[in-house]
Order: sequence, then C-alpha cells, then structure tokens
Amino acid sequence: MDIVKEMARTAKDIDNALLPYLDVGKHDKLRKAMKHYPEAGGKRLRPLMAITVAEAVGGRGRAAIPFGCCLEIIHNFTLVHDDVIDQDPVRRGRPAVHVLYDIPTAIIAGDALFAIAYRVLAETDVDGEGLRRLVRSVSDTVYLIAEGQQMDVDNEDSPDVTIDAYLEMVEKKTAVLFACAAEGGAIIGRGSERQIKDMFEYARLLGIGFQIWDDVLGLEGEEKVLGKPVGSDIRNGKRTLILLHAMEQLGDKGRKEKKGVLRALGNDQATEAEVKKVIDLFRELGSIEYAKQRTLQYAAEAKAKLACIEDSREKDLLEQLVDFAVGRKL
Amino acid sequence: MDIVKEMARTAKDIDNALLPYLDVGKHDKLRKAMKHYPEAGGKRLRPLMAITVAEAVGGRGRAAIPFGCCLEIIHNFTLVHDDVIDQDPVRRGRPAVHVLYDIPTAIIAGDALFAIAYRVLAETDVDGEGLRRLVRSVSDTVYLIAEGQQMDVDNEDSPDVTIDAYLEMVEKKTAVLFACAAEGGAIIGRGSERQIKDMFEYARLLGIGFQIWDDVLGLEGEEKVLGKPVGSDIRNGKRTLILLHAMEQLGDKGRKEKKGVLRALGNDQATEAEVKKVIDLFRELGSIEYAKQRTLQYAAEAKAKLACIEDSREKDLLEQLVDFAVGRKL
Repeated sequence: MDIVKEMARTAKDIDNALLPYLDVGKHDKLRKAMKHYPEAGGKRLRPLMAITVAEAVGGRGRAAIPFGCCLEIIHNFTLVHDDVIDQDPVRRGRPAVHVLYDIPTAIIAGDALFAIAYRVLAETDVDGEGLRRLVRSVSDTVYLIAEGQQMDVDNEDSPDVTIDAYLEMVEKKTAVLFACAAEGGAIIGRGSERQIKDMFEYARLLGIGFQIWDDVLGLEGEEKVLGKPVGSDIRNGKRTLILLHAMEQLGDKGRKEKKGVLRALGNDQATEAEVKKVIDLFRELGSIEYAKQRTLQYAAEAKAKLACIEDSREKDLLEQLVDFAVGRKL
Repeated sequence: MDIVKEMARTAKDIDNALLPYLDVGKHDKLRKAMKHYPEAGGKRLRPLMAITVAEAVGGRGRAAIPFGCCLEIIHNFTLVHDDVIDQDPVRRGRPAVHVLYDIPTAIIAGDALFAIAYRVLAETDVDGEGLRRLVRSVSDTVYLIAEGQQMDVDNEDSPDVTIDAYLEMVEKKTAVLFACAAEGGAIIGRGSERQIKDMFEYARLLGIGFQIWDDVLGLEGEEKVLGKPVGSDIRNGKRTLILLHAMEQLGDKGRKEKKGVLRALGNDQATEAEVKKVIDLFRELGSIEYAKQRTLQYAAEAKAKLACIEDSREKDLLEQLVDFAVGRKL
C-alpha cells in the first residue's frame, strides 16, 4: 500500500463531499470567498486522519467523511482569519481572501465557514450522544486554536520565547486539530475508550512533529517544493524551534558576538550569503539537528500509541502517516 | 406581571450562568477580550425569548438556559466582529474590543466566543436528536447572519438599496437569531412541531419589527436613552427604512430639488438645524409614519402566531415582549 496514492484517492473522496457543502446561500461573493481556499486543493490530512482511524478501530471510513469535512472547513476558516491577522497576502501561490476581496469579507467568510462546519458536523452518522461528544471535542479544539493564535500574535512583541512556550503554541495552533480528527474518527468508528484516548494522543504527537518538521523544511527543503525561498523564515524573523534553540545556545553574550550574522534575522533585504551564514551558524550550534531529533522523538511516541490498534492495513497506514508528516519533502 | 421586572430577573439568572462559561483557558488577555462585551450587561433578550418559549410550550425554562447563553455568546461574537468590520470605536459607551486591544485580538476573541457558544450548546438538557436539531438551527442561523452582514458591507457601496433588500438584510442580521431562540426554546420545551414552527415565525416577525423600531428611535428617541445624539443615523448616512422610503418618494427629480436639505446625510459636520430639516422632510414625506406602520404590522403578525400557545402567564409575557420590542423607549 502506497500512502501517497492512498492520500490522493482519499483527497478526491473528500473533495467530492466537501465542495458541495460550501455551495450554499444566495450571496455569490460570500460563497466565492468561502470556497477560495478549499477549492485550491490540499492534502486533506485531517479528514484522512479521521477516516483512517474510524476504519482502524473497526468502523466504516465513509461514516467519518462529514466529520472530516467539518474539520477541513474549520482548518480553512482558521487560515482565512490567520491571513488577515498576519497580513499575509499570499496563500498556496494565490492571493489571500482579504487581498482578493477585502478584510470585512474575509472576516465574514471565515465566520460563515465556521458556521457551515458545524452544520456539516450535525450530518455525522452517529447517535445523538456521539454527536454531543463530537460537538464538545470540536468546540474545545477551536477554542485552543484561538488561544494558540493569540499566543502567536503576542509572541511577536516579546523578545524571548521559551522552547516550552513555543511547543505549547504549536500544540494549540496545529496539533489539537489533528488530535480532534483522530479522536472523532475513533468515536465515529465506535472504538473503545482506550482507543479514543490513545488515538487522540497519537495524532497530537504527530501534529507537533509535523509542525517542527515544517521549520526544518524551511531551511533544508527545496524551493519549488516549499513554495517559498529557502530561508524565508529567517528573512521574516519567524520564530522556529531551530531559532529558539540557537538563541538558548548562544545566550546573551554569544548573541552580541554573532550580531553580524544574526542581522539577517527578520531582515527581508538580507542577501543569500547572509541567510546562508545564519543557517551555517544554526548547523554549527546543533540547532537543526536538535529540531530533527525532537521530530523523531515525537514520531516514535506517536507510533507507540498505535499499540491499541490491531495489525491491519489501516494501522500500517497510520504508521506511514507519521513518517509522511515528519519526513515529507512535499 | 411586569415585563420590565421579569426581564431584569431573567437577565440576572442568565448573567449568573453566562459569565462562568467564559472563564476558560489560560490566556488572560484573550479571556478579558472575550468577556468585554458580555460583562457590560444588556437586556439578554435572546435568552429571555428561549426560556419564555420553553415554558410557554409546557417545558422547563431552566432547561433552556445553556441554549440561551449559547445564543447570547453568539450575539456578542457577532458584535465583536461587526465592530472591527464597521470600524466602530465605541460599544455601549465603552471602547470596542479592537480599540481596547487590537484588531488581531478582536478577530481571535470573536472566534473563541463562537467556539465556546457551541461548547455551551452541547450542555443543553435535550436528547441527542434534539441536540442535533439545535446544532443545525444555530449553524444555519449564524450562516444567515454572516450573509446579512455581507449584504450590509456591500450595500455601503451601492447607491440604491431597495426596501425589499433592506428588509432581507434586517431579517438576516437581526431577526433570524430571535427566531432561532424561539425555535430552540420550543424544541427544548418539547413543544409540538406546529408550535416549533410558529414560535420561529413569531420571533422572526418580532425581530424585523425590533430593528425597524430602532430606526424610528434614532430620529425620535431621547439622546440619553439612545446613547447617541438624535439624528446621528442621518449624520452617519445610515441606510434606514425611513431613508429608503423617503428616497423612493422623492424619486430622482425630487432628490435633486431637495439636495440642499439632503446634504446633511452622511455629513458628520451637519448642524442640528440641518439635521432637523432632514427629519422634517422625512415627516412631510410620511416616511417616519411609514416605518411606524410597518413596525405595527410586523408586531400584529407576530402576535397572531401566538395562537398555538395556551393562555398562560408565559403567553402573556410573549405578547408583552412584542410591545416592548416595537415600542420600547429604553
């Protein structure tokens, strides 16, 4: 079984279900604004997670499709609002919603997506108490995402962010939605309480690894695959685990000494040579290696949580999903 | 039974339940931003509607409190985002959330309130299928509110809005949330399908009347009660049913003739005398009277929908609620 083929197949199933959910209402502009990100495609990792877990615990994958679509719509709603908040003009090589339309429309389209996500959730084929549990899980998750986004906004103004605070932020902004996907998949597939708990944890750990791996890719990935120049995280002054580790290693004194090298941080005019010097410094300090090791650690812990699943094609897929999340080049 | 006393009593019950729901999370600033509007008080009309309807159909009012709080939180979430969208710096005499904090925090706080609203909804004491129905109703409602808000944003740039388009916008921005409150109250109170349907309609009609009455109050209310100077709708160029009726009456030719008078529209430097001239013109054209008559019509239709409720203290209260909504001075 090839995970990339499997992902492509499931993404197609998801798209077929997802896009019609967004064909609602009588307001053309609002509908187009809502569909702008979802119809640009994507790997649909969260629905894939929900469907695969539902099958892995012995349920029907199809029963998890509305729930998976709900999470994908929520993911897209957060992207629309995040881009307004971060003033990012581009998403997946296309203009952001607030650039293509305007900020009011982007705020409203995000809210409308959020509302539709719950409308779709209500279509899930679970009994009423299962639905109650899903509503709680999704709501708690979105609240944590909001908290993570607020931490991210606040961190921009604070010079020193600890690695722990960074990891908490990553967990909230990224990992909890994966965790919700796996937990919900296990609920819909009628898994045991133990499986529901462990699947949540599996996906939470995977999600943190996924995000740290993003930081590594930002320095070592290929430009055409990243969709942005290598080192743009450095030019943007983006706080990554790698940067935070390097800062800890340097301490105040070291930072002063390396001031020349670090000038490229957050300087969008930095030359390629200056960016390369920062990357070399990160490498010298062991910071890139540190991030890779942390990623592998999260990956191993995630896989260990799969012990509650019987050997099967789906368990195999969930294992491969970890390797994909923390080793992907795409 | 005095509706004002009854409202004050229920508002207190609601507040006691509502504010603790918002004491969540570990992020102080986010929590404060979320609570800024809800803790400023308010009439809590939507929860009052849900509770009273639940009792009117024979159920327990207390069972509708979480649902009522959910709608109040949604109402507040829409206010936070609306103020960002409309760039309104003040709400209820206090700085708006995006002014007290910043725009990113206001967007995130609105999203977080929305998430919490569904978390509270899940606590409703109904069976699972009842909950499914409430989730659908709330989600459809928030989607319509988004559509109404988008219409409002778009109308600002279009010179001629028809009265029908205005009423559609009012229905979506304001009336559907009242309708959802009454429908949900009837579901929670285990009313008949007929009662559920008629209670929805009762509150929808009341909600439209409520909003048109706001336009009348803006010209004829007392400043200390309005919280804004009489005629500020004129200085802000706000589209109201009164203005739209006047424009229709004048036609293109009349508008040219009255250009001098109409100069006060949307002119925040207009003198009191200039504003008064516009109000006099509205009166002369019968536009204020037209708005009053439309309000009374909606009120009468709303009351007619109460036929499905047995005579009771609660039915009496629902009738008084109509009079309050379309005749309030407070």
